[in-house]
Amino acid sequence: MYYIGIDLGGTGAKAGIVTEEGSIIAKSSVPTKGLEGYEAVVEAMAKLAIKVVADAGLTLDDIKAVGIGCPGSVDDKNGVVYYSNNIVMENAPICDEMKKYIDKPIYIGNDANCAALGEFFNLGDDSVENFVAITLGTGVGGGVILGKKLYTGFNGVAGELGHINLCFGGESCTCGRKGCWEAYASATALIRDTERAAKANPDSLVASMVAKNGGKANGIIPFEAAKAGDSVGKTLVDNYISYVGEGLVDIINIFQPSIVAIGGGICNQGDNLLIPLREYVIPRTYGAGLVPATEIIIAKLGNDAGIIGAAFLAKK
Amino acid sequence: MYYIGIDLGGTGAKAGIVTEEGSIIAKSSVPTKGLEGYEAVVEAMAKLAIKVVADAGLTLDDIKAVGIGCPGSVDDKNGVVYYSNNIVMENAPICDEMKKYIDKPIYIGNDANCAALGEFFNLGDDSVENFVAITLGTGVGGGVILGKKLYTGFNGVAGELGHINLCFGGESCTCGRKGCWEAYASATALIRDTERAAKANPDSLVASMVAKNGGKANGIIPFEAAKAGDSVGKTLVDNYISYVGEGLVDIINIFQPSIVAIGGGICNQGDNLLIPLREYVIPRTYGAGLVPATEIIIAKLGNDAGIIGAAFLAKK
Repeated sequence: MYYIGIDLGGTGAKAGIVTEEGSIIAKSSVPTKGLEGYEAVVEAMAKLAIKVVADAGLTLDDIKAVGIGCPGSVDDKNGVVYYSNNIVMENAPICDEMKKYIDKPIYIGNDANCAALGEFFNLGDDSVENFVAITLGTGVGGGVILGKKLYTGFNGVAGELGHINLCFGGESCTCGRKGCWEAYASATALIRDTERAAKANPDSLVASMVAKNGGKANGIIPFEAAKAGDSVGKTLVDNYISYVGEGLVDIINIFQPSIVAIGGGICNQGDNLLIPLREYVIPRTYGAGLVPATEIIIAKLGNDAGIIGAAFLAKK
Repeated sequence: MYYIGIDLGGTGAKAGIVTEEGSIIAKSSVPTKGLEGYEAVVEAMAKLAIKVVADAGLTLDDIKAVGIGCPGSVDDKNGVVYYSNNIVMENAPICDEMKKYIDKPIYIGNDANCAALGEFFNLGDDSVENFVAITLGTGVGGGVILGKKLYTGFNGVAGELGHINLCFGGESCTCGRKGCWEAYASATALIRDTERAAKANPDSLVASMVAKNGGKANGIIPFEAAKAGDSVGKTLVDNYISYVGEGLVDIINIFQPSIVAIGGGICNQGDNLLIPLREYVIPRTYGAGLVPATEIIIAKLGNDAGIIGAAFLAKK
């Protein structure tokens, strides 16, 4: 049997056919931008799902369940999206609507939670009970696996790990609060800080790289500038590692998971990020050196994590 | 059948006989200060436990299990205290040692975790699956109940909620890190801030109250001064509520528990603390107004929470 995993984003939906072992045997995508109302979005997702079943040479008889990962706040128990900024939904009964098109068990989860679930299954390590995945992207997303199950709290919206405090009263966050981890550790925040540093240090390599890029920074510039010996780049990278690191210390002190995986485009930096991050985090965790330490790794599934995790919502 | 609950502190141990329903029918205490080595501490606890069994008119045949709440980092699965600053233990096999005196199932847990477990059982509300208790005392302790079970992570030391970030690079914390929630929201921190404010504002009511108290602040002075209209007292209370509140927002965004209970001496302020705290916290949580909200309450068991929770480690 197979699962359909759907990863709904702000501008489109991706769907894949996922095996029991977590491989994607077919996938496709469809734009959803401009669609009005959740019914239209669900219809587009359903048609995409049915198409991808055919693409895989299967019929719906081969499908065990459908899982949908959705940005925003999701009531996973009742199959409802409380609300989502990106795709303008409020109290949308997504699972019931999808069942009109595909009469299978339908599951829904927050997209960051689905990505975490995908990464967890991909570990293939039966000894891991507790696992946290963090995505450093436009925002900072998190998903928490406890006792091998996705943890979503009493209302479905737990695990908003980007929205824990880093700096009391600090940078404004998209959630309306000030000083959230996301406002320092997201790629968006690194880009903001890089543009500020370029402006403040016009003679730096960072500034010339930003200028060459049409006046816009990206998450690669500070790392490249640091590697070339630029002190402004080095400070940006050091600060970013301390911002990401402090949040990871929090997560370890809270959950003490066997493994924390970090993902998102910034993680393409590989060991340039991972090695100093481990050096920052581990000595600062509670009981460091006296209790077994959490392992910090880079997430492996990339963009497929959402599809695989959504498919595996049925297995949670 | 009955349980023995033991609450080990920095200077002494308390033991109680706890019923299946969570009532204490007898309790007693013994000093442990000055005892050298974990063996001597366990011997003192065992003798105390045997005494309190007799005090209750019972014999060991009436006892189902023994639970011990211990400050520090505890490996609950193996019955070992990794280390404890307060009572100088390192890799101490407490459960095996206790079994030499009382041949019953012996359980051990971190003291803040035990207090949380006690408060959870005391709720008596079967609908509550996820619950967090915070103690605002010398430090800030936390305990997390998920799926009706104490959550302790892969190594036993999860739930160190006092050691999450409030203010990046801020006040030094006892754990060696800077800016932890504990360094702002503990009673110790409030006292520090009150003494600083008294020094900086020698004409304030806060300053005169501190002077009358022999130059030492306490956790009551700022609240009393604020009630009397003193602006320095009011600022201290407002700041303290924002410090405690920011950490509670974090905890809600992470766990979305049905209930968060706050305890510790500061909570004797009752509604003076609870009402502004709720007003601060709830609108700042992720998805406020759109998703069901966590309830914030004041813990009810006071000093007995540790004994009752330790006894109920066997029920976890």
